[in-house]
Amino acid sequence: MPSSPSRARIAIVGATGYTGSELVRLLIGHPRVDIVAITSESRAGVPFSDVHPAFGGLVDMPLKRMEDVPALKPDLIFLALPHTVSMDAVARFRPEGIPIVDLSADYRLSGPEPYAQWYGVEHRDPEGFKGAAYGLPERHRKAIRSAKLVANPGCYPTATILALAPLVEAGLVEGPLVADAKSGVTGAGVKPKPTTHYANVADNFRAYGVAGHRHTAEIEEQLALASKKAGGQPLHVQFTPHLLPVDRGILSTVYARPRADAGLSAESLEALYRDAYGDEPFVRLRQQAPSLKDVRASNHVDIMPVYDARTGMVLVLSAIDNLVKGAAGQAVQNMNLMLDFPETEGLRLVPLAP
Amino acid sequence: MPSSPSRARIAIVGATGYTGSELVRLLIGHPRVDIVAITSESRAGVPFSDVHPAFGGLVDMPLKRMEDVPALKPDLIFLALPHTVSMDAVARFRPEGIPIVDLSADYRLSGPEPYAQWYGVEHRDPEGFKGAAYGLPERHRKAIRSAKLVANPGCYPTATILALAPLVEAGLVEGPLVADAKSGVTGAGVKPKPTTHYANVADNFRAYGVAGHRHTAEIEEQLALASKKAGGQPLHVQFTPHLLPVDRGILSTVYARPRADAGLSAESLEALYRDAYGDEPFVRLRQQAPSLKDVRASNHVDIMPVYDARTGMVLVLSAIDNLVKGAAGQAVQNMNLMLDFPETEGLRLVPLAP
Amino acid sequence: MPSSPSRARIAIVGATGYTGSELVRLLIGHPRVDIVAITSESRAGVPFSDVHPAFGGLVDMPLKRMEDVPALKPDLIFLALPHTVSMDAVARFRPEGIPIVDLSADYRLSGPEPYAQWYGVEHRDPEGFKGAAYGLPERHRKAIRSAKLVANPGCYPTATILALAPLVEAGLVEGPLVADAKSGVTGAGVKPKPTTHYANVADNFRAYGVAGHRHTAEIEEQLALASKKAGGQPLHVQFTPHLLPVDRGILSTVYARPRADAGLSAESLEALYRDAYGDEPFVRLRQQAPSLKDVRASNHVDIMPVYDARTGMVLVLSAIDNLVKGAAGQAVQNMNLMLDFPETEGLRLVPLAP
Amino acid sequence: MPSSPSRARIAIVGATGYTGSELVRLLIGHPRVDIVAITSESRAGVPFSDVHPAFGGLVDMPLKRMEDVPALKPDLIFLALPHTVSMDAVARFRPEGIPIVDLSADYRLSGPEPYAQWYGVEHRDPEGFKGAAYGLPERHRKAIRSAKLVANPGCYPTATILALAPLVEAGLVEGPLVADAKSGVTGAGVKPKPTTHYANVADNFRAYGVAGHRHTAEIEEQLALASKKAGGQPLHVQFTPHLLPVDRGILSTVYARPRADAGLSAESLEALYRDAYGDEPFVRLRQQAPSLKDVRASNHVDIMPVYDARTGMVLVLSAIDNLVKGAAGQAVQNMNLMLDFPETEGLRLVPLAP
Repeated sequence: MPSSPSRARIAIVGATGYTGSELVRLLIGHPRVDIVAITSESRAGVPFSDVHPAFGGLVDMPLKRMEDVPALKPDLIFLALPHTVSMDAVARFRPEGIPIVDLSADYRLSGPEPYAQWYGVEHRDPEGFKGAAYGLPERHRKAIRSAKLVANPGCYPTATILALAPLVEAGLVEGPLVADAKSGVTGAGVKPKPTTHYANVADNFRAYGVAGHRHTAEIEEQLALASKKAGGQPLHVQFTPHLLPVDRGILSTVYARPRADAGLSAESLEALYRDAYGDEPFVRLRQQAPSLKDVRASNHVDIMPVYDARTGMVLVLSAIDNLVKGAAGQAVQNMNLMLDFPETEGLRLVPLAP
Repeated sequence: MPSSPSRARIAIVGATGYTGSELVRLLIGHPRVDIVAITSESRAGVPFSDVHPAFGGLVDMPLKRMEDVPALKPDLIFLALPHTVSMDAVARFRPEGIPIVDLSADYRLSGPEPYAQWYGVEHRDPEGFKGAAYGLPERHRKAIRSAKLVANPGCYPTATILALAPLVEAGLVEGPLVADAKSGVTGAGVKPKPTTHYANVADNFRAYGVAGHRHTAEIEEQLALASKKAGGQPLHVQFTPHLLPVDRGILSTVYARPRADAGLSAESLEALYRDAYGDEPFVRLRQQAPSLKDVRASNHVDIMPVYDARTGMVLVLSAIDNLVKGAAGQAVQNMNLMLDFPETEGLRLVPLAP
Repeated sequence: MPSSPSRARIAIVGATGYTGSELVRLLIGHPRVDIVAITSESRAGVPFSDVHPAFGGLVDMPLKRMEDVPALKPDLIFLALPHTVSMDAVARFRPEGIPIVDLSADYRLSGPEPYAQWYGVEHRDPEGFKGAAYGLPERHRKAIRSAKLVANPGCYPTATILALAPLVEAGLVEGPLVADAKSGVTGAGVKPKPTTHYANVADNFRAYGVAGHRHTAEIEEQLALASKKAGGQPLHVQFTPHLLPVDRGILSTVYARPRADAGLSAESLEALYRDAYGDEPFVRLRQQAPSLKDVRASNHVDIMPVYDARTGMVLVLSAIDNLVKGAAGQAVQNMNLMLDFPETEGLRLVPLAP
Repeated sequence: MPSSPSRARIAIVGATGYTGSELVRLLIGHPRVDIVAITSESRAGVPFSDVHPAFGGLVDMPLKRMEDVPALKPDLIFLALPHTVSMDAVARFRPEGIPIVDLSADYRLSGPEPYAQWYGVEHRDPEGFKGAAYGLPERHRKAIRSAKLVANPGCYPTATILALAPLVEAGLVEGPLVADAKSGVTGAGVKPKPTTHYANVADNFRAYGVAGHRHTAEIEEQLALASKKAGGQPLHVQFTPHLLPVDRGILSTVYARPRADAGLSAESLEALYRDAYGDEPFVRLRQQAPSLKDVRASNHVDIMPVYDARTGMVLVLSAIDNLVKGAAGQAVQNMNLMLDFPETEGLRLVPLAP
């Protein structure tokens, strides 16, 4: 095994959105990282802290263009670009051989066909799927370590897959599974839209993307892999996202009906999750219902599985910060694996509560 | 049929909580009502507007004691008291023969046994259950008209029962049903508690009462009545309430698995709900996902049923203002029925958005 | 004096913004008003409730174009248009002789010169200023009654002028006066902008328009009129608006230094405000610090004047709902005066708290 | 000068409140600190993370009692206790000779007399004032370095004194000064009260403590010291706090009238603040109005001074996180000075925005 570098030169492509600035927030506190470039095509030349004033005096380096990145010889590139844009950047950087963590949705699915089906766009880099790892370390740690391209999972899928995978992998539940998920506004992006206008969000709550949200495909594909391990078939997931009047955080409340022969109990359910996650550095199994603030600004996933003997149902509550474990934090976790750094390096973040 | 009175003298017992003040808000705008007493044992003698400053100059009448009420000869009494306290007031006022709308949980269930089981308290007025009507007009309009005691439904049950009843009554779905519900903070009452502290609620979200909330019993009992009409058995409901960082509003997202022979389609589902609610003055069937602000401060129930052909599941979204259709507004609707006023009198409230 | 009509036909020009929908909310509850047209150039033909779903089932009339209005013979027109656009509509409707309440800023100042100076635009209807009344009934009731064009005041000016006018009119204070004002987001309009993005507003607070906000001119001009009555000179106002993470409401905290010979005391200050506002139907003089929720959704102005004997300073706290007393409610109050309806007709609104 | 220790053993007395948990949040990230005890009299024996679930897996050490602290030989003690309680702890620990940072108000004023006057309680440790340093490093760095007891400033005073001190110290302004300040809810403490109930705070805003808040004394005393340097007299400060619907943060908007001979200009004002704060590691002079989120969770003070040539007034906007620079962060900054650590050690915190 090659020795791990003591430090790494990192480029962040796409700086104006929330995942871009969150990556910067995490990486300037990472003891082994030097940020060599942050890019924005629309704001090139402008100090990063002009775009994100919170960073004034902390990160004032001028933004570069994507084309300036290769000459800086980064050890790894984060792509914080919109989906359908990111695939072109991946194709462009591939010949350089630089490892990439792509925070967009462009390589999360199993191939160009489901991508075209769910995203309504022909994929322009179909060969990129080969060798791309799905960047959920709790599920694909080994593949991530050796991948050149890691597709960082969606925020809803991170919370939902981690909630359901142990049950599905053990072949204990039947479909359709129900995933009732609730997300903060940053998941909708930095761009002002009617749906992100304060007066439409505050003191309000609603579902969206009912019966058709794209993250459904990502969740179902990953759970199909888990089901296959138990010799099972793919399961449908009834996934319903809702918009919370909060900045950050996802709570996914999932419901599963045990198979007739599952023989579940509160104890066996707890043991199942302890086996799955007992050694995971970022998963906390909870006895109390998880809350968004208890994971806010941190890379934790708080999970509480519950067996209701009265109804015979299982429900699992799973909370993350959508910008950290659901995006930038998980991306840094993937970087740590790819660069052979300790997996928790730079990620021992204390949740901000209140 | 006795002729309806042109006006009614109304007493509100219990003025310090949110349902009490919301009743006052609605009743001072009701064209046929004179409020003859508002009571509070702890604040008797104090002007109502000292307790609720928003009413300054509007309702400055001094608070009375419960014992002062009968002498004022009210035509109807609203009880806005905590559960386990309300039953004593009901027993006390019964000999007077005055119609009562009880906003507590004390008479919502089918009898003293389930009450003791779910509320952990022996019921001290078991005979009160006889003749008590469950005050959900869309389900029990006729019984309400002739009842002397109406048990005003809980907020979660109102949203959830109305979402599920058409499906269950048609015998189309099997259990367990899933009701993932989210409520604003006023549902937790006016009393300061750690769970209602701003810093624990704002920018936060969590479930509570998982697999054991008392409203489960109310929902299941009402749906059992609906199921019986189709010759079916009672169904379990997996009910999970969550606390939203909003003042008012409940969104209940319910999931049901159709029976194998249900033969559902998007069209038949829509027709089912149109048949059930097309003539209801407060139910709005929606093509877009309902939102809390679109019903805020009004007596509307916004409902959107969805059939997902991909998964074969049905989901229904249902939104109310927990203090209006979930409490005081529904209570006034029940009063209108009991006093033979037009059902919508005083309730043509425009939602406050934003 | 012509007899007042029993009912009036009303047109609302400009329906997509918050003031437009708030006018509709108030007017459908007004016992003497028939809304004959609501217009939107961009959404003409679409039901009003498609643009504002809260009104579903309540106001489903299709939106018209501005040009359709005269043929409908309205008794009064509300203009809920952006400033610089409204003046053209005023010029267009003037020949029809229909009374107009203009909710924009186009006729609030004393003439085209200060308008050009503060708004950076040449006024295209300079003669419109003649005969236009400044629609603050507590200050200009008589002029409003007889005006054909009423310039509905700005939200900040309403709260701030009412807070300061009694002191200035009595010649008791010297300048510069300080007005530290805080507004909810609806004051920034319905259009999505970075400054109205939920994530920039929630859990946040900041000043804007420091030392240059346009409402300064409106406040100073009105206070100059008040000062003149005391034989005094115009005073400067240091006006600083801030953006609150709330939907509705303005709190203006004003500070004034008494003149050396003012001889103020807590008692004389209270008497001054009682004299000024004791008979005003919408002003409530408060002993406790006013709060936004105690006026929310209502036409009230809650005012508390304080004399601090320790420092010798006066401060006045003034709270309104920016969409009601700061816009649509005040516009209806002006309409009532112009049409010789009782001033409070349709405006006995109970604040929504919580 | 004694050499600085490489590491320090730290005790935190009082763990259940916000300042206690915020100290823990900061200190577990401090590279030279070992937390040897966290105490709570009411929760002794319970894991810290049971009281503050966000710390699950991070800080699970059981809470101790105050009496257990001396035996652990801490190098410094933080007192995060309520005022009037803290003085007894100071008196108790003084004989041990352990340096103390007291986060309460008990030693912030100049002596027992003003304390009795503003806090309404006889001080039980009057000699404690001798040698106590006021822990605002930007004003008293030298005294803090050598003090055994540092009185950590109040949150409002931190923001307000730093905003005004340069002007006062230069003798440029006359009184009364106006400080219109707005704070998040955590400033009101962790205890549930009507004033911290979500439904009273959210979508709301109000002033409190008008013309009598205790922080007035602290601000005036510190500014009197500054005025004295210019040979001037103490100035009155008209201080008005308001409660914002946010968790964290204070914005103080201060207004000052220049003396007739001040000769201020935008340039000279900017130069004055650059001279005062240009080398300060935590003060950021801003060209844009500071916002709470741009300092949230960090130790920054964002300050923008403005000279309004039109009115002749000066205003200064100053933003902090009340739990960090207004409490725990400043306490750690003081600890760094007292223990001869680099002043910014453990405090290079990136603001959390959004």
